[in-house]
Amino acid sequence: MYSVAPAQVAGLFTANRVKAAPVVVSERHLRRSSNIAQAIIVNAGNANCATGAQGMQAARACAARAAALLKIPVRQVLLASTGVIGVPLDATRITNLLPALVRRMHPEGVPRVARAILTTDTRPKVASRTLQVSGRKATILGMAKGAGMIYPRLIPSATMLGFLFTDAVVEPRFLQRAAARACDLSFNRISVDGDTSTNDTLFLMANGMAGGWVIGEKSTAGKAFFDALVAVMQELALALVRDGEGANKVAEIRVEQARSEKQAEAIARAIALSPLVKTAIAGADPNWGRILSAAGNAGVSFEPNRVDIYIHRMRVCRQGGAAEFDETAASKLLQAKDILIRVMLGQGTAQARFWTCDFTNEYIRINASYRT
Amino acid sequence: MYSVAPAQVAGLFTANRVKAAPVVVSERHLRRSSNIAQAIIVNAGNANCATGAQGMQAARACAARAAALLKIPVRQVLLASTGVIGVPLDATRITNLLPALVRRMHPEGVPRVARAILTTDTRPKVASRTLQVSGRKATILGMAKGAGMIYPRLIPSATMLGFLFTDAVVEPRFLQRAAARACDLSFNRISVDGDTSTNDTLFLMANGMAGGWVIGEKSTAGKAFFDALVAVMQELALALVRDGEGANKVAEIRVEQARSEKQAEAIARAIALSPLVKTAIAGADPNWGRILSAAGNAGVSFEPNRVDIYIHRMRVCRQGGAAEFDETAASKLLQAKDILIRVMLGQGTAQARFWTCDFTNEYIRINASYRT
Repeated sequence: MYSVAPAQVAGLFTANRVKAAPVVVSERHLRRSSNIAQAIIVNAGNANCATGAQGMQAARACAARAAALLKIPVRQVLLASTGVIGVPLDATRITNLLPALVRRMHPEGVPRVARAILTTDTRPKVASRTLQVSGRKATILGMAKGAGMIYPRLIPSATMLGFLFTDAVVEPRFLQRAAARACDLSFNRISVDGDTSTNDTLFLMANGMAGGWVIGEKSTAGKAFFDALVAVMQELALALVRDGEGANKVAEIRVEQARSEKQAEAIARAIALSPLVKTAIAGADPNWGRILSAAGNAGVSFEPNRVDIYIHRMRVCRQGGAAEFDETAASKLLQAKDILIRVMLGQGTAQARFWTCDFTNEYIRINASYRT
Repeated sequence: MYSVAPAQVAGLFTANRVKAAPVVVSERHLRRSSNIAQAIIVNAGNANCATGAQGMQAARACAARAAALLKIPVRQVLLASTGVIGVPLDATRITNLLPALVRRMHPEGVPRVARAILTTDTRPKVASRTLQVSGRKATILGMAKGAGMIYPRLIPSATMLGFLFTDAVVEPRFLQRAAARACDLSFNRISVDGDTSTNDTLFLMANGMAGGWVIGEKSTAGKAFFDALVAVMQELALALVRDGEGANKVAEIRVEQARSEKQAEAIARAIALSPLVKTAIAGADPNWGRILSAAGNAGVSFEPNRVDIYIHRMRVCRQGGAAEFDETAASKLLQAKDILIRVMLGQGTAQARFWTCDFTNEYIRINASYRT
């Protein structure tokens, strides 16, 4: 992936203490280039993680070769890898292909790139939004991959890989903050299996080619840019969950009437991560007791006796106890591809959303046989 | 369950913020009786959780009826329930049976009780040890149940239910501390699915009928008592994991060469909870990369490049990278019913153990159809 001009980059990397070589190299390059980059080299099939000094050399070799071919400083090349952990990466398998890849670069190449970065994913994920800034059109385009080991916790420092590009002219510090906050509202709010990868990486590149005034944080344009960014990231994040290993359904867990967004988020996260909730969704079982119990494990206080739980608009739990509802109708709601579970805490006005998928036999089959 | 004499009781209850009525009532009774009790009423099938004021009344009715029949103060009756959450408990279904249960109480009744408390368990769990204290024989007997929603985090306050009895004469504060610490080394070190129940309860009753000197903490007898207690609890905890929903295998995750027990425990816990590790065990896949990645998510620092990982005695990861090993032989080791995974951190001398089971299709089947 190549930007026609050097771009401001916001880079977010995994919170896993075990970090893959491409993560370490990319973090270093961004530090040295003051967050300027022009190219990203991605490979799927080998995570280049737990590969020691050889893995670091392989990563550096890929970056160096790409820099030479593109005639840009090596620190302006970023890396991302996804695939099996602990297998040495033969850099020549990438460096030998780089000349042909550079020759064939094309503005219409996005669909092919989006497909090339997949592993256990079944389909590519691309999303975009356009916005008007000072009379000019700007675009945000994003690609992502990831179906298993999906529980991104990206920190301003999965294998979720997310690549976002914009031609908008964005004030550098706002770009960083917008990327981190939008990620907190999207990729950091999804889970397939609760396993945070060693390779999770998100890059947002802004090359300013749209021209016009610089977009700052506290402006109408800044608000529009941020909203569009969140929309692109949420669309991609949702697409990851929908394509989660073995997943048939996506459930949005929406916690409302909370004291704070933090409280709401912790409870939504705990519900979304619970295997018992996820298997109940798989079985279309309106088992609200598991939802309440999972909320109780969130590590934040709340008043169980004030909690109402809804499946879509149907109340299944009222003030912490059973509501009167039609079990068959509730089960039918849980047979849909898209499920909304609302948990009303009865304490305030804050809310948070989190997306998860059902937990199926297919997940077990894929992961008992597939080598991550 | 009835003690022929009033007993000192150590009670440990779930850390879930949603607590079942029997948990709330038992905590209160222990507070009011200064940790003295003589009877425990247990029911399976209904957790009496998320049942509001009616649930509290039902719990109190059961305790009151048992107290009247046994002619003991109501605060000396403890309760435990396991089963479906959110369904009103009809107390008369228990109170009507209590007269017959009291009439038929018998010292040899343990196997029948151990069977009566089961839910999705496939077999009862009983363990015992005897020890010599000041020339007299004392016994510790324990029963436990629990196959799903098993990730006990009991605090000195699952649906893991554990009932332990001893006729040893134990100094009250030591009894509390010994129960909490032994629980930390056993029940609090197991997971089936990472879901902590609203009903987890452990009672250790010591009625002193063995006679002899009081067993204090800093004595040879205290050490022997504690070791026997840990042995009984670990045997029961291991039996729970072995009978975990859908489980075919038990894996002991042993983290060694740690800076502290806390660090070792956090890493062992993270590995044991990882669905990707648990499915790899199900598939007999020696995928050490998932083990290392899970360790990286433990929230504690360590040096990945110093980590060695063994499956039994076979080293599969050396200094954070691939070790040379025979994949087929390693896979064969993972086909056994009992698996030992050792993670050597290369940092110190502390260690911790955690027990988990494999994650199979059968777990999904049970929980997509069973109503917890």
